[in-house]
Amino acid sequence: MKEFNFLKKAADLMPPLYETVVRPVSGIPEGRNMRDGDSFMLDFGTHLVGFITLSVEVQKGDDTADSPLAVQFEFFENLREDTGEYYTGGMSRSWFQVQTVFADNPYEPVVLTRRYAFRYVRITFPANTSYAVSYKDCFVKAVSSADLSEVEPLPEDTDPLLVKLDNTALLTLKNCMQTVFEDGPKRDRRLWLGDLYLQAKANYCTFKNNDLVLRCLYLFAGLPHENGCLSSAIFQEPVLRNQSWILHDYALFFCGTLADYYRATGRIGVVRELWQTAYRQTEIAYEAFEKNGGAAPSDMYFTDWCPGLDKATAALGILVSMLKEALFLADAIGDSTRQKVLSERIGEVSKALKAAYNPAEKLFKAPSGQLSVHSQMWAVLSGVLGDGDNAAVMLETLKRKDLVKPVTPYAMHYFSEALIRCGLKDEAFAFIKDYWGAMIEKGFDCFPEVFVKDNPEASPYGSVAMNSYCHAWSCTPSYFIRTYL
Amino acid sequence: MKEFNFLKKAADLMPPLYETVVRPVSGIPEGRNMRDGDSFMLDFGTHLVGFITLSVEVQKGDDTADSPLAVQFEFFENLREDTGEYYTGGMSRSWFQVQTVFADNPYEPVVLTRRYAFRYVRITFPANTSYAVSYKDCFVKAVSSADLSEVEPLPEDTDPLLVKLDNTALLTLKNCMQTVFEDGPKRDRRLWLGDLYLQAKANYCTFKNNDLVLRCLYLFAGLPHENGCLSSAIFQEPVLRNQSWILHDYALFFCGTLADYYRATGRIGVVRELWQTAYRQTEIAYEAFEKNGGAAPSDMYFTDWCPGLDKATAALGILVSMLKEALFLADAIGDSTRQKVLSERIGEVSKALKAAYNPAEKLFKAPSGQLSVHSQMWAVLSGVLGDGDNAAVMLETLKRKDLVKPVTPYAMHYFSEALIRCGLKDEAFAFIKDYWGAMIEKGFDCFPEVFVKDNPEASPYGSVAMNSYCHAWSCTPSYFIRTYL
Repeated sequence: MKEFNFLKKAADLMPPLYETVVRPVSGIPEGRNMRDGDSFMLDFGTHLVGFITLSVEVQKGDDTADSPLAVQFEFFENLREDTGEYYTGGMSRSWFQVQTVFADNPYEPVVLTRRYAFRYVRITFPANTSYAVSYKDCFVKAVSSADLSEVEPLPEDTDPLLVKLDNTALLTLKNCMQTVFEDGPKRDRRLWLGDLYLQAKANYCTFKNNDLVLRCLYLFAGLPHENGCLSSAIFQEPVLRNQSWILHDYALFFCGTLADYYRATGRIGVVRELWQTAYRQTEIAYEAFEKNGGAAPSDMYFTDWCPGLDKATAALGILVSMLKEALFLADAIGDSTRQKVLSERIGEVSKALKAAYNPAEKLFKAPSGQLSVHSQMWAVLSGVLGDGDNAAVMLETLKRKDLVKPVTPYAMHYFSEALIRCGLKDEAFAFIKDYWGAMIEKGFDCFPEVFVKDNPEASPYGSVAMNSYCHAWSCTPSYFIRTYL
Repeated sequence: MKEFNFLKKAADLMPPLYETVVRPVSGIPEGRNMRDGDSFMLDFGTHLVGFITLSVEVQKGDDTADSPLAVQFEFFENLREDTGEYYTGGMSRSWFQVQTVFADNPYEPVVLTRRYAFRYVRITFPANTSYAVSYKDCFVKAVSSADLSEVEPLPEDTDPLLVKLDNTALLTLKNCMQTVFEDGPKRDRRLWLGDLYLQAKANYCTFKNNDLVLRCLYLFAGLPHENGCLSSAIFQEPVLRNQSWILHDYALFFCGTLADYYRATGRIGVVRELWQTAYRQTEIAYEAFEKNGGAAPSDMYFTDWCPGLDKATAALGILVSMLKEALFLADAIGDSTRQKVLSERIGEVSKALKAAYNPAEKLFKAPSGQLSVHSQMWAVLSGVLGDGDNAAVMLETLKRKDLVKPVTPYAMHYFSEALIRCGLKDEAFAFIKDYWGAMIEKGFDCFPEVFVKDNPEASPYGSVAMNSYCHAWSCTPSYFIRTYL
């Protein structure tokens, strides 16, 4: 059975995790005697994913510890999480990174067995013990499958801000690289195809863990839905399975991810293995387009977290772009039958997309009449217009303030890519420095899942406490810097 | 080094723990879908000491568990503990038996690694998970070093109430018998000499785990204070050591415990080994008596949890009783020098005790003039009066309502023993049935640390939530029933 085959291959590619021991850089309560609610906040100076161990000194002068030691841990990727409010949003409160331990032996280190993602940890001793304790040691065994030694340093003369962006992007990607490319290590720790597509792009020019990309491709290919459509995400835990959701853009990105993998490795054998799976995604998305009367069923496309976005035109751009990636793969293995089919379909969808273009305004409209950055960037990336018109569209997009704007670094990646695609490299890097640079200014250690410059409270989850502050799809500054500079 | 020797011998006598798997008898939420604060209370039908495992069914229809499962456990020996109040007493709140677990894999059983003592457990799913869970299984691996097969059944025709008292006492002792004789398995789980003395008495006529008694004698002998005085308690965990406290009555009970061990086993070699240690306790207590001008330093005696008790006379009774047990040991090994010394000292202390006797009133007074049951029972047990006078004292004690009364089954043991000692066996059993029987009536599964018939709120710790509801020193009904009936 083919699925089993893919999953077996994925299992064989399980990567080793590199461990680094990290100790706090500040917040250590030197010589302080604590009990009955006393607490302190450790700062590890950088974002970490790993396992924590705390050791305390039971105070001399007190009798031997005559009761268990209660220790409460609260982990924060970012102090914006420390709202102290009771969360009422839709995500499960069980994602909050807290744990209270009752240590029967306070002389032994307290070792938490769960993995946490954090820079800060508040440690509280809530109980009125007869004995006080003081800080002895705390360390984190940080884990990642990324090998930093693979990363080439940027040239000496690189713009310092770009160096900062690159370092932050590297840390973001590294901390999401575990036994799969996770979307975010705090939660939901899942392999998403949309995230994988961008993580893989950044990986090829940084950590070069190409086998991890291949492992993830096999996992998706090994766990399709009944009609052969790929799921938008894979659960490794608690049970290896696909998620029930289907998103056409995510499924189509399998073609883009496979094409990029082939460009990076030249491994045509892998393309042959996965070609059926990749091609099937274009069939499903194209049939949906046809059934929908020559329009993409936009509720089947994620595109961005942007509320009220009319995705229909952007969706056509995504479909054309990925049909072209599929054609690139068909060319590579010489599947002439499908080359023909794909070319025709690219033509059909391109026609529909072009119909949304208003040459006078130099912008693409969504069916609702909505003008969004999303429509422009995907139309440009699809290449349905010539280079000149593409550039005109992006310049217009830069000029116009009234367009609906992306709210995620994920969508901003495609915007930046679109600028570069039509020769506006300077504008692209100006934008990257402005948008991702603002995250650095705001003191983020990694690039977050959601970032809106003028709205720090932006959250798709009802509270910034639930936001992911180290999110893989935001890691592409390294890709842009290392690919285009 | 002798201490090392004793501790080595204690280690060699580490008992195996018998495991029994127990499942709840009621409270199972059959087929109920739970999340977001839903909870249920399991009743295991009996008091248990052990390790709990919970399994849940993740509800079909929901997507795979996409977030950790938070599970909160609250354990109760007795529902009187479920006060819901914030404890402000002197004991550490870390003793309360609660734990919240965040299970990354809700498909696997949740196994708590700490040992708990309980009959009831409330299980709550506090988080707003996207999936509901239902009850699948829950069991406790109950542990004890007591071997029930050693216990002989009582005669067919035994009074049903006495059978109940015996069963409850057996359960109480069994659940306190772990790798040492613990005082209470909920907390502080410590080996106390005063408790050991009574547990050992009950053990000889029930579980007959005589090596566990010997192991405990070695632990005390192996961890004396600098002057050779034994500690009142031994910590096994977190570090094997003696407790700083010194109580003369507890230290003296080492003589009584060793004497009982010899009577039960006839092992004179053990008496020889431990004789120095035992005798040293009598020296220390006697010197303190002399230093104190021929009176026992009553603040060095525990006697009972009874508030405002003048212990001085009872303390003399304890001292005489244990000097006599030491003399019994000296006779057994033929240590003539010390036979002589002990006889003289018994005379000296007896004289002081007799001086507290008022023949007209047929009662012993404490120096403050206080009349307490404690003074009478210990004076009688010391045997300073003849049998006739002893009986008169106990009859008077039974008659008088104005005497300060014991508040613990521990002290009530000596009261019952005193009645039997002077031939008032019927009165003794009438009392045992009345006092320990009242605990059964009040629905206790085991005999608690503290019990005052007309005050269910009685607690030495500021709240019944902190009381120990399975306490070894209350287990002697089995000893009385099996020794004197």
